[in-house]
Amino acid sequence: MPSPVFTYPHRVTYSDCTVGNHVYYGRYLEILEAARGAFFREIGFSLTQLQDQGCIFPVYECRLRYRAPARYDDSLTVSLGVIDAGGVRLAFDGRVQTHAGTLVLEAQTFHACTDLEERPRRLPAQLAEALKAWLSPATPRPSPPSNAL
Amino acid sequence: MPSPVFTYPHRVTYSDCTVGNHVYYGRYLEILEAARGAFFREIGFSLTQLQDQGCIFPVYECRLRYRAPARYDDSLTVSLGVIDAGGVRLAFDGRVQTHAGTLVLEAQTFHACTDLEERPRRLPAQLAEALKAWLSPATPRPSPPSNAL
Amino acid sequence: MPSPVFTYPHRVTYSDCTVGNHVYYGRYLEILEAARGAFFREIGFSLTQLQDQGCIFPVYECRLRYRAPARYDDSLTVSLGVIDAGGVRLAFDGRVQTHAGTLVLEAQTFHACTDLEERPRRLPAQLAEALKAWLSPATPRPSPPSNAL
Amino acid sequence: MPSPVFTYPHRVTYSDCTVGNHVYYGRYLEILEAARGAFFREIGFSLTQLQDQGCIFPVYECRLRYRAPARYDDSLTVSLGVIDAGGVRLAFDGRVQTHAGTLVLEAQTFHACTDLEERPRRLPAQLAEALKAWLSPATPRPSPPSNAL
Repeated sequence: MPSPVFTYPHRVTYSDCTVGNHVYYGRYLEILEAARGAFFREIGFSLTQLQDQGCIFPVYECRLRYRAPARYDDSLTVSLGVIDAGGVRLAFDGRVQTHAGTLVLEAQTFHACTDLEERPRRLPAQLAEALKAWLSPATPRPSPPSNAL
Repeated sequence: MPSPVFTYPHRVTYSDCTVGNHVYYGRYLEILEAARGAFFREIGFSLTQLQDQGCIFPVYECRLRYRAPARYDDSLTVSLGVIDAGGVRLAFDGRVQTHAGTLVLEAQTFHACTDLEERPRRLPAQLAEALKAWLSPATPRPSPPSNAL
Repeated sequence: MPSPVFTYPHRVTYSDCTVGNHVYYGRYLEILEAARGAFFREIGFSLTQLQDQGCIFPVYECRLRYRAPARYDDSLTVSLGVIDAGGVRLAFDGRVQTHAGTLVLEAQTFHACTDLEERPRRLPAQLAEALKAWLSPATPRPSPPSNAL
Repeated sequence: MPSPVFTYPHRVTYSDCTVGNHVYYGRYLEILEAARGAFFREIGFSLTQLQDQGCIFPVYECRLRYRAPARYDDSLTVSLGVIDAGGVRLAFDGRVQTHAGTLVLEAQTFHACTDLEERPRRLPAQLAEALKAWLSPATPRPSPPSNAL
C-alpha cells in the first residue's frame, strides 16, 4: 500500500517571483513551511499546540532540487510525505508541481525534535503514533550534527 | 541650520525584485527597517540594547509614495530623518534614491514607544536627548490610535 | 445598499512573523497583493490576462495603519473594497481581521493603470464596468504624482 | 596554497528573523544570493553585465546545513568559495559565521550557466579564467538534471 501524501495548494504571487518571472529560489522554503503547518493541523497537532507542550522542530538540513521554474499566477500543489519520524528526528519529502503536472521542486527537510531551549527530546508519543500512518518506506537519513542541537 | 540626515546604502538583490525587474513594493519596508537599525547603532542606542531595557518601537502607521522603480543591482541610498521624538512617539522620514539621484521612494513611519508588553511608555530620557540633534522641523503627526497600544 | 466586499483568507506562517511573534510590518503588503490577485481572478480579469493585454497596475502610494498584532497560526481574513476605479486610477481599501474579529490592519493602496512601459492608460472598458459593482462611495483620493508615471 | 575566500558582511534585521528570535531558514538563501552578487562585482563581472551578454546562472540544487541559530542584530560574515566552474556549471560553497566565530550555516549552491532562454551554454571564457583563481580543490559535484535546463 503506498504511503499517503498530504497536498497543499499555493497560488504564485508577485512577492514570490523575481526578475525573469520565476519563483525566487528561497521562497520555496516558505511555501514548504506553510505546507508543513497545514499538515500538522490536518493530523490534529498544530505546531502552536506542540510548542505550548514544549516541543519544536528546528530544521538542521535542507536539500532542494529545482526542476523547472514556476511563474506568476501558477497554481502549484505541494505534496508532502514523512520520510523519518522516530526518536528525536522528523523529516519530510516535498514535491512541488504545477497544475499541468510539471515537477518544479523536489525537497527534503530534516528537523530535530527539541524543547523550547533547543535541547533534543523525543517526539511526543501520540504525535509519533499519528505520524506512522504517513511514513514513507525508503529514506535518506543524515544524522543531526551534535552542534546543531 | 538644516537637520542632519542619516544615510544607509542598499544594493538591490534578486530577492528584492519581482516580475518586470523592479523592487517589490513591500520590500522597501525591509530596507527602511535595516536603515533604522543602523541609525540607532550610529547614535549609540542599538535596538537590542533598548529592548534589553524594556523599550521597543512598534510601527502604528506607514505612508509610502513610490516615485520611480529601482532595479536589480541598483546602488540605493536611504536617507533617514527624525520627524517626531517626544513623549511616547517616534517617527521617521525616509527617502530612497538611486546612485544617479533619482528619487525612488518617500516614506514616513510612525512608531509608538512601548514596554515589552506593548504598553506605551516615554522614550528613555537619554535617547530622547540624543534624538534631538536629528529632529527635523516640520512634521506630519498622526496620533497613535488608542487601540494600537 | 452597501458595497460588496471581497474576502480572502490567510493563515499566518513563521515566514510572516518576526521576533516577538507578530507579523512583520512589510509582510502585510504581500498578503494584500495576494488578496488583490484573487479579487481580479474572482471578477474574471486575472492580472496575467490583463498584462497580456498590455495593462498593469503599479502602486504609487500606500497607507497602512497597524491596529493590533497578528500571531503565528492566526487565521486572518482580508476584506478588499474598491475605492477608486476611473480614468487611469485604481485604488483599494483593505482590512485585515483575525478569526475572533480583531482589526489588525487598515490599508489603502493606490495604483496607476499603465501599459507595459509604465505610461498611463485608461482602464480597459470592460474591467472598468466590472469594477463598478465593487465601488465604495467615499474615498481618499491622492493624485498620482506626474513623475511616478 | 589555500584557495582564496570571498567574504561578505550581513547584519541581521527583524525582517530576517522569525518567532523565537532566529533567522528564518529560507532567508539564508537571500543572504547567500547577495554575497554571490557582491562576489561577481568583486571579480569584475557583475551579474547585470553577464545577463546583458546573454548569460545567467539558474540554481538547480541547494544543500543547507544549519549549525546554530543567528539572532537579531548579529553581525554575520558569509565566506564564499567556488567549488566548480567549468563547462556549463558553476557551484559555490558558502559558510555563515557570527562575529564570535560560531558556524551558523554551511551551504552549497549549484548553478547552470545558460542563455536567457535557460538553454545550457559554456561559461564565458574570460569569466571561467577569472574564476580559476577562486577555485577550491575538492568538490561535491551533482550533475544538473537534464530537465532542469
